[in-house]
Amino acid sequence: MVSRLDETIAELAAYNDDPDSGGMTREVYTPTYAAALDRVAGWMEELGLAVRLDAVGNLFARWEGAEPGAARVLTGSHVDTTLNAGRYDGVVGVLGAIEAVRRLQVDGVAPRRPVELVAWAGEEPRFGTGCVGSRAAAGALARADLDALRDREGISMAAALREGGFDPDRLEEAELDPASVHALLELHIEQGAVLESSGDEIGVVTAIAAPHDFTLVLGGAATHAGATPMRLRRDALTGAAEIVLAVERIARASASGTTVGTVGVVRARPGAINVVPGDVQLDVDVRDSDAAARRAVVDEILACAADVTARRGLELGVVPIVEDVPVGCSPEVIAAVEAAAAEAGARARRMISGAYHDAMILGARVPIGMVFVPSAGGISHHPDEFTASEDLERGVRVLAGTLARLAA
Amino acid sequence: MVSRLDETIAELAAYNDDPDSGGMTREVYTPTYAAALDRVAGWMEELGLAVRLDAVGNLFARWEGAEPGAARVLTGSHVDTTLNAGRYDGVVGVLGAIEAVRRLQVDGVAPRRPVELVAWAGEEPRFGTGCVGSRAAAGALARADLDALRDREGISMAAALREGGFDPDRLEEAELDPASVHALLELHIEQGAVLESSGDEIGVVTAIAAPHDFTLVLGGAATHAGATPMRLRRDALTGAAEIVLAVERIARASASGTTVGTVGVVRARPGAINVVPGDVQLDVDVRDSDAAARRAVVDEILACAADVTARRGLELGVVPIVEDVPVGCSPEVIAAVEAAAAEAGARARRMISGAYHDAMILGARVPIGMVFVPSAGGISHHPDEFTASEDLERGVRVLAGTLARLAA
Repeated sequence: MVSRLDETIAELAAYNDDPDSGGMTREVYTPTYAAALDRVAGWMEELGLAVRLDAVGNLFARWEGAEPGAARVLTGSHVDTTLNAGRYDGVVGVLGAIEAVRRLQVDGVAPRRPVELVAWAGEEPRFGTGCVGSRAAAGALARADLDALRDREGISMAAALREGGFDPDRLEEAELDPASVHALLELHIEQGAVLESSGDEIGVVTAIAAPHDFTLVLGGAATHAGATPMRLRRDALTGAAEIVLAVERIARASASGTTVGTVGVVRARPGAINVVPGDVQLDVDVRDSDAAARRAVVDEILACAADVTARRGLELGVVPIVEDVPVGCSPEVIAAVEAAAAEAGARARRMISGAYHDAMILGARVPIGMVFVPSAGGISHHPDEFTASEDLERGVRVLAGTLARLAA
Repeated sequence: MVSRLDETIAELAAYNDDPDSGGMTREVYTPTYAAALDRVAGWMEELGLAVRLDAVGNLFARWEGAEPGAARVLTGSHVDTTLNAGRYDGVVGVLGAIEAVRRLQVDGVAPRRPVELVAWAGEEPRFGTGCVGSRAAAGALARADLDALRDREGISMAAALREGGFDPDRLEEAELDPASVHALLELHIEQGAVLESSGDEIGVVTAIAAPHDFTLVLGGAATHAGATPMRLRRDALTGAAEIVLAVERIARASASGTTVGTVGVVRARPGAINVVPGDVQLDVDVRDSDAAARRAVVDEILACAADVTARRGLELGVVPIVEDVPVGCSPEVIAAVEAAAAEAGARARRMISGAYHDAMILGARVPIGMVFVPSAGGISHHPDEFTASEDLERGVRVLAGTLARLAA
């Protein structure tokens, strides 16, 4: 069964800067992104909603409620992608929200509160930092950041905004008044395999884990792989290997049971088969919804790295990357999602979101919640990312039911 | 004290395709290499030697002996470099041989056998495989190899030969008649820190270790680093880390005591901080002068890799790279080197060469030997590569004494 959501997802996937890769590449503020966002705005307008772009390119579409002055219920996600990505990440939350409103309109639901759809700009980290649109809405970006944040080609976010027809000096206008938001709800693919492995259909997110990221820099001696006996080596890669295994071991043993620890990037130099690696960098990512558990894991990893490098006669440097704050979801939103899931006859389970989302950024200022649908094989940020039609349909039904409750 | 060898090394270092890097880049068959080789030939001619280039660009300079028909004593090394390298690797063996002949001539030595100086073409692996000049001399290259061997830019060795004024179809003419060679002697920097750490001045090489190289390809699942709980991961990098440590542990425990095992290259994909590595390649290098010990270490590494990947639910592939044959040095050459070192009052020690050299390629066909001088800090293939003047001078003295003995 192909749903209307399947169709709009497929149509939006045509807006792609690298179709030959097999995956999706649609970075924020590019002409392709702007054209895709325009198509999304068209679908919103078909529902009779008033559409507007804010100062950083966040797209809003308002469905007026019976009580126009009431605090709104915001729902949406993002339609930008990372490189060679899938078609579902973010897109499901924007196009799914359009389908949810369509369903409520067809069912004759008249919300008391305004319901506002949103497509946040730049959730994926084109400029190194993700969630730039929602950070602007949360007042968490300064004008100077727009010059400092740069993409792979050195283009600043400010320059990209100008290129896209926006004025970076109007950044402050993008800040949302928290009092004007009753709740923020985001439908998203799980991007993991928790639902698939448990057989559940809907994830009711109770908290969003935040990353604490840093780079470990190990310095040894780049000596000849043939001419340097084992006892005379200062091999930065064997030291790094101990640390990679320690990250895994320490995260597994974390008291919270929800910590994850990953080394996703390893750079070993000079990178020749006949030279002992003299310099290795490891990018380490530790996440949890439990900030204390995350802190304890990071501390233990750093202590272990210090031990390993001291024992092996290596130098160690630590370069901070990011330390975001995990947030809990609103009990009212959680209850509404659970009620809607029950009404839809969906097998739902409470879970944390290991990935971060725009909702996390706003979560410090307004009540938030998230609805997850299963990701086949847990695959995301990859052309094989997939969520089945019936799971998408179920997600829309739960989102609509939740919106109806929150806006009532 | 600056010796004549210091001066010619410094002069040759001016032939450099990347002086801004701080190191030497002079790859075989480039115009810069040809100009450097021409300068070397000029120094050889100053000694009254007859100079010739063979079909693949090996440069020979013959000092006729009292018995012209006698099998010759060959000595030399190479003057090509890898990228951003030092000034001593190879160069010391070519320019040092010139200085050794000069010294013998000054001392009035009249060899019975011809002494032939050589600068082998392409010891460094511009075309993936090293020692192409000495392989041609050993009859170990076929015409088809010259088309198959390609550099980083896809230029075949055949095309590079033509560009340099050589005819790849005359490859066979480069093959040396083993009966025409009494012995092959190579002076070289150690490229390791064995001499430096023991306080010895001259290394008398008894055998040359050969590499057995292969790539291990690990396949896991590239899932979201935040959204994938530790228990649901198939992380190819943590598996690879176990193998990196196993290579170290198994090489250290090798029965021969001379095995070295190195992972010099690690490629982890997709290489993003928020994605669990799904594909990792490790380039593994195992060397020993003891072929049986090397085989046992390789077998144990492969068995361990199979265990680790099976336990972690990863796929494993093994791609062979090279499996060269270690060679022993000639007892006659070893004895001559030791006698020459004693005469020079040098503290000499027997050792194996962990690095491979042109002498290894010829070693299967003719009697060989090598003389090592210390490398400061064991550093090689790096701009900081350095051997002190007095060590160079001592190397020349030992080389001259050895040549005098072998050619008598």
